[in-house]
Amino acid sequence: MISSSSVAKASRPDISSDKLIYAFDEADKSMKDLLGGKGANLCEMTKIGVPVPYGFTITTEVCHDFLELEDYPEGFAAQLEEKLTQLETRTGKKLGDSESPLLVSVRSGAAVSMPGMMDTILNLGLNDKTVEALATKTGNARFAYDSYRRFVQMYSDVVLAVKRELLEEELEKMKEEKKVKLDTDLSADDWKKLIVIFKEIVKKESGHDFPESPLQQLKFAVEAVFKSWNNERAIAYRRMNKIADLRGTAVTIQAMVFGNMGEDSGTGVAFTRNPSTGEKEFYGEFLMNAQGEDVVAGIRTPMDICELEKINKSAFDELIAVKDNLEKHYKNMQDIEFTIEQGKLFLLQTRNGKRTAHAAIRTAVEMVNEGLLTKEEALLQIDANSLNQLLHPYIKKSVERQVIAKGLPASPGAASGKIVFCSETAVDMAEQGEKVILVRKETSPEDISGMHAAQGVLTARGGMTSHAAVVARGMGKCCVAGCTDIMVNASAKKLLIGEMVINEGDIVTLDGSTGEVMMGELEMQDPELSEDFKTVMEWADEVRTLQIRTNADNPHDCEVALGFGAEGIGLCRTEHMFFEEDRIDLVRKMILAKNSEERSKPLEKLLAIQRGDFEGIFKVMEGKALTIRLLDPPLHEFLPHENAQIEKLALSMDISRDELCGMISKLDEVNPMLGHRGCRLGITFPEIYEMQVKAIIEAANAVAFDGIVEIEIPLVGMASELKYLRKIVEKVIEEYDVKFEYKIGTMIEVPRACITADEIAKYADFFSFGTNDLTQMCFGFSRDDIGKFLPDYLDKGVLELDPMGSIDQKGVGRLMEFCVELGRKTKPDLEIGICGEQGGDPESVEFCHKLGLDYVSCSPYRVPIARLAAAQAALRK
Amino acid sequence: MISSSSVAKASRPDISSDKLIYAFDEADKSMKDLLGGKGANLCEMTKIGVPVPYGFTITTEVCHDFLELEDYPEGFAAQLEEKLTQLETRTGKKLGDSESPLLVSVRSGAAVSMPGMMDTILNLGLNDKTVEALATKTGNARFAYDSYRRFVQMYSDVVLAVKRELLEEELEKMKEEKKVKLDTDLSADDWKKLIVIFKEIVKKESGHDFPESPLQQLKFAVEAVFKSWNNERAIAYRRMNKIADLRGTAVTIQAMVFGNMGEDSGTGVAFTRNPSTGEKEFYGEFLMNAQGEDVVAGIRTPMDICELEKINKSAFDELIAVKDNLEKHYKNMQDIEFTIEQGKLFLLQTRNGKRTAHAAIRTAVEMVNEGLLTKEEALLQIDANSLNQLLHPYIKKSVERQVIAKGLPASPGAASGKIVFCSETAVDMAEQGEKVILVRKETSPEDISGMHAAQGVLTARGGMTSHAAVVARGMGKCCVAGCTDIMVNASAKKLLIGEMVINEGDIVTLDGSTGEVMMGELEMQDPELSEDFKTVMEWADEVRTLQIRTNADNPHDCEVALGFGAEGIGLCRTEHMFFEEDRIDLVRKMILAKNSEERSKPLEKLLAIQRGDFEGIFKVMEGKALTIRLLDPPLHEFLPHENAQIEKLALSMDISRDELCGMISKLDEVNPMLGHRGCRLGITFPEIYEMQVKAIIEAANAVAFDGIVEIEIPLVGMASELKYLRKIVEKVIEEYDVKFEYKIGTMIEVPRACITADEIAKYADFFSFGTNDLTQMCFGFSRDDIGKFLPDYLDKGVLELDPMGSIDQKGVGRLMEFCVELGRKTKPDLEIGICGEQGGDPESVEFCHKLGLDYVSCSPYRVPIARLAAAQAALRK
Repeated sequence: MISSSSVAKASRPDISSDKLIYAFDEADKSMKDLLGGKGANLCEMTKIGVPVPYGFTITTEVCHDFLELEDYPEGFAAQLEEKLTQLETRTGKKLGDSESPLLVSVRSGAAVSMPGMMDTILNLGLNDKTVEALATKTGNARFAYDSYRRFVQMYSDVVLAVKRELLEEELEKMKEEKKVKLDTDLSADDWKKLIVIFKEIVKKESGHDFPESPLQQLKFAVEAVFKSWNNERAIAYRRMNKIADLRGTAVTIQAMVFGNMGEDSGTGVAFTRNPSTGEKEFYGEFLMNAQGEDVVAGIRTPMDICELEKINKSAFDELIAVKDNLEKHYKNMQDIEFTIEQGKLFLLQTRNGKRTAHAAIRTAVEMVNEGLLTKEEALLQIDANSLNQLLHPYIKKSVERQVIAKGLPASPGAASGKIVFCSETAVDMAEQGEKVILVRKETSPEDISGMHAAQGVLTARGGMTSHAAVVARGMGKCCVAGCTDIMVNASAKKLLIGEMVINEGDIVTLDGSTGEVMMGELEMQDPELSEDFKTVMEWADEVRTLQIRTNADNPHDCEVALGFGAEGIGLCRTEHMFFEEDRIDLVRKMILAKNSEERSKPLEKLLAIQRGDFEGIFKVMEGKALTIRLLDPPLHEFLPHENAQIEKLALSMDISRDELCGMISKLDEVNPMLGHRGCRLGITFPEIYEMQVKAIIEAANAVAFDGIVEIEIPLVGMASELKYLRKIVEKVIEEYDVKFEYKIGTMIEVPRACITADEIAKYADFFSFGTNDLTQMCFGFSRDDIGKFLPDYLDKGVLELDPMGSIDQKGVGRLMEFCVELGRKTKPDLEIGICGEQGGDPESVEFCHKLGLDYVSCSPYRVPIARLAAAQAALRK
Repeated sequence: MISSSSVAKASRPDISSDKLIYAFDEADKSMKDLLGGKGANLCEMTKIGVPVPYGFTITTEVCHDFLELEDYPEGFAAQLEEKLTQLETRTGKKLGDSESPLLVSVRSGAAVSMPGMMDTILNLGLNDKTVEALATKTGNARFAYDSYRRFVQMYSDVVLAVKRELLEEELEKMKEEKKVKLDTDLSADDWKKLIVIFKEIVKKESGHDFPESPLQQLKFAVEAVFKSWNNERAIAYRRMNKIADLRGTAVTIQAMVFGNMGEDSGTGVAFTRNPSTGEKEFYGEFLMNAQGEDVVAGIRTPMDICELEKINKSAFDELIAVKDNLEKHYKNMQDIEFTIEQGKLFLLQTRNGKRTAHAAIRTAVEMVNEGLLTKEEALLQIDANSLNQLLHPYIKKSVERQVIAKGLPASPGAASGKIVFCSETAVDMAEQGEKVILVRKETSPEDISGMHAAQGVLTARGGMTSHAAVVARGMGKCCVAGCTDIMVNASAKKLLIGEMVINEGDIVTLDGSTGEVMMGELEMQDPELSEDFKTVMEWADEVRTLQIRTNADNPHDCEVALGFGAEGIGLCRTEHMFFEEDRIDLVRKMILAKNSEERSKPLEKLLAIQRGDFEGIFKVMEGKALTIRLLDPPLHEFLPHENAQIEKLALSMDISRDELCGMISKLDEVNPMLGHRGCRLGITFPEIYEMQVKAIIEAANAVAFDGIVEIEIPLVGMASELKYLRKIVEKVIEEYDVKFEYKIGTMIEVPRACITADEIAKYADFFSFGTNDLTQMCFGFSRDDIGKFLPDYLDKGVLELDPMGSIDQKGVGRLMEFCVELGRKTKPDLEIGICGEQGGDPESVEFCHKLGLDYVSCSPYRVPIARLAAAQAALRK
């Protein structure tokens, strides 16, 4: 018997026709999704009259069917035959013809560029018969056999999975035998012999003869390119570059042109502007008598593109005209590949050039000045995420790295210092002027002062949104988290990496942008924000409709954020204030009080201190809106866990160590993230929230604050919670002559809050999505534990992206949609924002824009990114 | 400045008219929601001609407005005046009239009966003037002044909040002075004097004169009754009885009749059948010359209702006729209150009588036999939850209890035994024939064997769905959980309750139905299932459409469940099998293996053992469907945490204690419930799931099982997880010649799974809701930690019910709705069930029926409850 129901067939998107293959003159650049970037651009170039060897492209849908359903869609074979015939007619050549054989390249190309990740085959169509025709026709046997052996090598590797080294060894042997250094020094006969040897190896390794039929060659090659979509490096590349939801690769089959037909032939790659500085100069390199792979291989040194003018002025002039044409046509800096075949120029590829953030900014501003782009078009060309490069110090590019361990790139930038294993030591050493790197198994709020004092943070556990990562990003401090390679032995003050032992005081360098850890102090470079950068930010501000706020808990962070253009605070966490040296003891006494009465004394003292904290923030944020979240974390986070500290506290509380330990362990929780925290604290200990509200009001009144204070109740899952606490907050407020505008609202971070948002909105003046917790609860993941299985999930393709990095639109995003819809059904003008870490992620910003949120809030150092992303979202809509 | 937006006004339900008060001849029993049970039934009795003193009822909506908006709805005063005038006209009396004064009772009454929880005032309308009129009119001054003083006492207590004792002391003083024992021995003059003293005390205590104006008395009384809706005992009662979503109490104002007008008057309460046995006999008691409160007060001993025949044959005959009429009319056993005023019978109340489960079953069967009810009607009259009483042993009712601590009634039944603090001791002592009670701070899977061996389980931490509670209910074993009164000192083998110390070996008795803990061994009674019970179950099976399955992990539990009528297994947890003595070491070695290879050896041995486990289950479940869940809990749950065990394991693994500790601590998690568990284990360690699937197939083949095996992947949140694991499971299956029907599906317990159910359904043959985890993640509660704030939530009215007990329909239920809708959009015939603890809760069963699920699955001991509840759901739809 078999399974009583079977897996549903994966559904296909709406495609307007059953056309599976497009000739170059049947499509244009708008069809990237279907034809890949390469295919669509070849069509576009054909359309605008740029010289391109003719060909056609098999769609990504065919790839999808082939990989998912393990079969070709209906009609594919017939369409392929038709296109081949068309190509043969256009070129006047014929596949496998003994007089005028058609040779083609078979190239991969997805909708998003993944350079070098998938496979390509050149010179396809050659066999023992056609090679002779090629030799005869070109009068160049050496060229013909060189082309043939290149094809056999490439085909054996890509299609037949024969180890590349096996053939290369034979090539080396032959060169040794002939006592020559360069491939070009081998003769037609040498190549002939080698081809025979290659084919023998292929037969031995694969069990089959090397296919002689060009049509068979072609079919296998197409399949191999399709399959290369799922090779390891392609999967890894997509993961690293957050490329998801693509259907597969297109395959382009194109008549070959040859840059290696002699000294009047050549090949090269070039950018229409300098991709690393943005300067307006033709930038690239070329080789005469070479095929494309030779330029990359590095055996012969390519020449600067401008040298071409001297070698072949007419080809150069034509190239200049073409590149100018392409840049104007695409309105974007282009990265092109060309071949000159016996003096005649062909373009093989054009695409928008990858560039550094620096170059992107400069290019954008200059193209607007040149009249090539509007400001809006220019804004859309900058990768918002790349701005991160500009906002933190980084390790000099020229410096060599010896990586000893690798973790998650949790907070960008780089830092060097002596490693220390506890916050106290970090603070002490920093006070003595030492640079330190704080190393912890994982950080907790107790480590805040140590993190402040340190240059960077390294943790063995935790993901991209672990405590260490979130706090470090907030501080703009470099952090490598979840570095599972290391073993932290804090009591022995040792760090173990395999057999290697690193002691306290040893110097390491962290690269928070790559997750790498290096021994010693590497040379750094400081970031500087250019005038162009400011110009771009101004343009962004003109366009965007989303407000950009920041997550900041102290006056310094507020100032940094204002400097970066933040318009308010979307999340001011009050718990960080509780950890400062001068008050942690009060906080602990407050927590461990046996009843409200005993609690009142430390609370009174804390009131005075918190009032001072808020005054500082209000002064900096004058005139702005700021959301202040009342106490959120479970109380045990504030209690000491180390012996010395426990004893100190017991002494100051005048109780025995055992009694204190008992009290502390009574507060322990099995799943603290789902425990006694957030508004649950407010309901069981209303006196704490009352104190905080008093501190807020008294501080705002004291400095005559004239912005908007938004009092935020965390972790609400039921309308009744907010109703209850709103009353408590309002009762406190009634005791004062409040002189500023205020709102009372809630963080939306529990799935149930989204589902019942219509009820909750009755008692809320605003919502703010806490997408960190919302994501965790929606997935049932704990960000502190995700490290145990996330790597497997990514490796095995179960997850394409870490959902903590960018809003999971299908799951978490749907909950947010419900919430916005239900909340605004109750209150059409309900203010809704987002303050989770993802508030600084460009894709998430775009999603928030689409949802109709009022603002996004992110860490100070991501404010410029959010500003640009918000502008792009507005422009794209 | 003030808040920029304000709380939305709570919306009112659709009411067809602005009518706020209904006279008894303007409504009927269908209007319970608006008039309360009492009011609606008084209307109904009026309608069918039962003698009822005239009156009217103020709706629950008025109460709601009064309490929520702190004001009466528009038009209330006018309507009250109108109804009063009508009442005066009907009775020919007038409020405050000096000749023929109208006296009324003011009674509470909600839509659901809450006996004695809210307030009532009798004899209202009496003052210094009207009391004289009453004395004159009845010619009985003693009666008139007795009535007056009763009114003053009641009114002072209920409306004026004067301490009851203050007035009662004066009454006692007076009786001592007069040297009499009974109230009835006091004279009119004595009462007169007392009334003066009472009023002085009232003035002193409340600062106001006792109100003389009957209209004022009435208005204050109505307000007081409304407010009594929110007194502590009413809130507690609603919570204990899971009464939620009511609008408030109605208030009935009714002309007084007097049972204390002399020896020809009287009052009583009665049931139309015996409420404790169900026997068909008129059952109740009465007192002559008394008001209702005297019957209850217990000073005079009431007489059996049948004695009335001898005292007043005509009143008795009329009463018999009325009660027969009422039972026939209501088609339900009635609980009535009556008064005989100078020989004339009046009914003051009728309602469906509360009864024991035993009586409910017998009454239902007998009423069907009598032709009074159809089977369907009879089924609807039985409280499904009450069946719980019949399925477990219980403490004899007559036994006196000295409660030393109270926790949550986590698993019903009762048990006595010597307390022990660890599983090993429990097992050892049980083997020696001792009865033991296992006491733990909280239980973990390691305690399973101890729980099996023990008579009952007592824990200091954890809620109604903590590990201890869930497992105990599954075993049908008595459990008191979350008993915060106790301090467990396991190492000292001591239990502390305040100052009291209980040592290992001391005997206690647990009542798992009340949560009470008593010292010593209390006498028990065994349950027995009557023929009537079986009849009712058969009727239920004829009607219900939901299939009833059970959660069972071993052959014994399966047998118990089949005995109770289970039709299959909805959840077979494989992890419980991992803890048995003979394999836990293998499990641990498997977990601690450094790689797949090292893991293969213990896995092979486990395969043989698991195959044996499954064979046992398949044999018992022959021909049935059963869902087997692959490994779910985080691996660290299986590892030892006590020193002795760690050392033993280290020895057997031939590694050092420290190394083992390091390995164990590496597996620790911050939030284990959101950690590396469920399908995440399957993805990182596919070999474990492979072994389990092999064991299942080999076992089913070995016993030639011919039911349906449902292989369940837990904790899926993404379609890609199920897709990946389905392939792994299918690959194992392909290796066998499978001879039985199987399905591959998933548990739905992560919010994201509900939201993306359309995607997940592509790879699932069935869904099974795991509402324990789904509720926790939807709310962001951990059931192990909820004990810290749940009591406050319930006390403060933030939560009306523990959401772990019954499906939270607004939140969790909405997610389930999405899931069913989306899942069946992809696969219209997708099998969907529920296996969370709530599968045995009648309200949840009804909800599941409405959702269109195929089955509910619950612990064996709740199967009969689920069968009845499913039948009721089908009938109600």
